[in-house]
Amino acid sequence: MSFRSTVLTLYPEMFPGPLGVSLAGRALSEGSWSLDTVQIRDFAADKHRSVDDTPAGGGAGMVLKPDVLAAALDSVADGRPMLALTPRGKPLSQARVRELAAGEGVILLCGRFEGFDERIFEARDIEPVSVGDYVLSGGELGAMIVLDACVRLLPGVMGAASSGEEESFETGLLEYPHYTRPVDWEGRTIPEVLRSGDHAKIAAWRHAKAVEDTRLRRPDLIERHGGASQAPPSGAQRKK
Amino acid sequence: MSFRSTVLTLYPEMFPGPLGVSLAGRALSEGSWSLDTVQIRDFAADKHRSVDDTPAGGGAGMVLKPDVLAAALDSVADGRPMLALTPRGKPLSQARVRELAAGEGVILLCGRFEGFDERIFEARDIEPVSVGDYVLSGGELGAMIVLDACVRLLPGVMGAASSGEEESFETGLLEYPHYTRPVDWEGRTIPEVLRSGDHAKIAAWRHAKAVEDTRLRRPDLIERHGGASQAPPSGAQRKK
Repeated sequence: MSFRSTVLTLYPEMFPGPLGVSLAGRALSEGSWSLDTVQIRDFAADKHRSVDDTPAGGGAGMVLKPDVLAAALDSVADGRPMLALTPRGKPLSQARVRELAAGEGVILLCGRFEGFDERIFEARDIEPVSVGDYVLSGGELGAMIVLDACVRLLPGVMGAASSGEEESFETGLLEYPHYTRPVDWEGRTIPEVLRSGDHAKIAAWRHAKAVEDTRLRRPDLIERHGGASQAPPSGAQRKK
Repeated sequence: MSFRSTVLTLYPEMFPGPLGVSLAGRALSEGSWSLDTVQIRDFAADKHRSVDDTPAGGGAGMVLKPDVLAAALDSVADGRPMLALTPRGKPLSQARVRELAAGEGVILLCGRFEGFDERIFEARDIEPVSVGDYVLSGGELGAMIVLDACVRLLPGVMGAASSGEEESFETGLLEYPHYTRPVDWEGRTIPEVLRSGDHAKIAAWRHAKAVEDTRLRRPDLIERHGGASQAPPSGAQRKK
C-alpha cells in the first residue's frame, strides 16, 4: 500500500511542482506515493465563493473561514493524520517525519493570508505544524517540505544503502562533514584519517566531528537530547 | 533596484515552480524581484560531466565535488550573500530573512545526494543554512523557502497594511490566534472581547494570548529572547 497524500490549498496548481522532479517525482510516477489536491474554494457556501473574511477585533489581512475549512477537511478525512501548516504550530522534527512516513499518508491544510480561524483546531483533530521560525506567504511550501521529507523515507525510494540512519537529526547530532575527490583542491586536502582505510578510526573521527560540529552550531540539539546523543550511534561502523 | 536571486541547482526546472504563483509570482512578474538559475552540471570539468564522487572514508551516497561547486559559485559571485542549504547549517530565522530582504539579493546553493564537500565552506564565503530539523531530498525546497520568506517582505509586495510586524517570530512571540465570521460556528463563538470594539482591551487580550501560546507551545522562543519578548510590542495597537 502506498503513502497517500491530500493537500488542501487555494493554489492546487502549485502541485506537484518540485515534487514532480528527481527523487520524489520518480517515486510519484512509480506509485510509491500518491498526491491529490483539493481546492478549498470549492467548499465556499456563498455565491461569491468567499473563503476568507476580516479578522474579528480588527487588524490587517484576512482570515480563512472555519466553516469552509471544515467542509473541505470533512470531504477527505479518513483517519490519516491531518496537519495544518502554520507558524503557530509545533516545529516539524525528523522523528515526526519518520512516524508520518510509517503511516498510510497525510492530509495537509495550507493557509494563506493571516491564517486559519482558530476554532478549526478545537473542532477538528488537526495538528498545527511549523516548518521553521520564519513566515511564508502560505502553507504550500511547508506542505511540500513535509511530503518530500516523508517520501524519501518510504520503502524503496532511496534504496537500502542510504537509509539515512546517520543523517543529521536522526541521532540527535548533525551529520559529520563529507569529502570527496580531488584529494588536493586549492591547497586544501581531505583529512588524512579518511584516507587511512581504517574503518574503526574513520567511524570514531566522524562521530567526534559530528559531536564537535553540533556543540558549536546547535548546542540546543544536544540539550534537547539530554546528552544521550553523544554516545556513538550503534550503526557508526555500518557505512563501509 | 529589485532583489536579485540566483539559484545553483542540478534541477533548474523546479524553478520558479510555486514561486511563480500567487504573491511571489505576482511580485516576480512585476519585477519586484528576479530569479535566475544556474545548472551546476554545466561546470563539470570532465567529459562525463560528473558533479559528484564517492565519500572519502567510505559510506553510502555521493558527495558534490568542491571544484565543480566552486566553479559554479565563482561564475555568479558578485557580493550578494551566498547561502548553501544544508541540515548542518544555522537555522533560518525571521531576523536573518529580514536582513536578506533588505539587501540586494541572494545566491543560493542547493545540494543533492549526501551533501557538499566540506572544503567549499573553507574556500568560499558561504553561509550554511538549514530551514528546519528534518532531512530533505535536496536543497531546492529550502531555497524556495528562503526566497518566499524574503520576497513577501520586499517593498510593495504585501502592501503597507500587512507589514508583518505583529506576525509570529517578529517579536519573539508566536502570533495571537485569529477569528472571523460566522460569530457562532458549530456552537463555538468568537471570544467576546474581540467583539467589544474596545481597541485597548483587544490589544491586551491578543498580547496575553500570544504570550500564553508561546509559553505553552514554544518555551524555547521565550528563553532565546530572554523574556524581553513578553513586553507588549510597540505596535500592539497599530492594527485597527
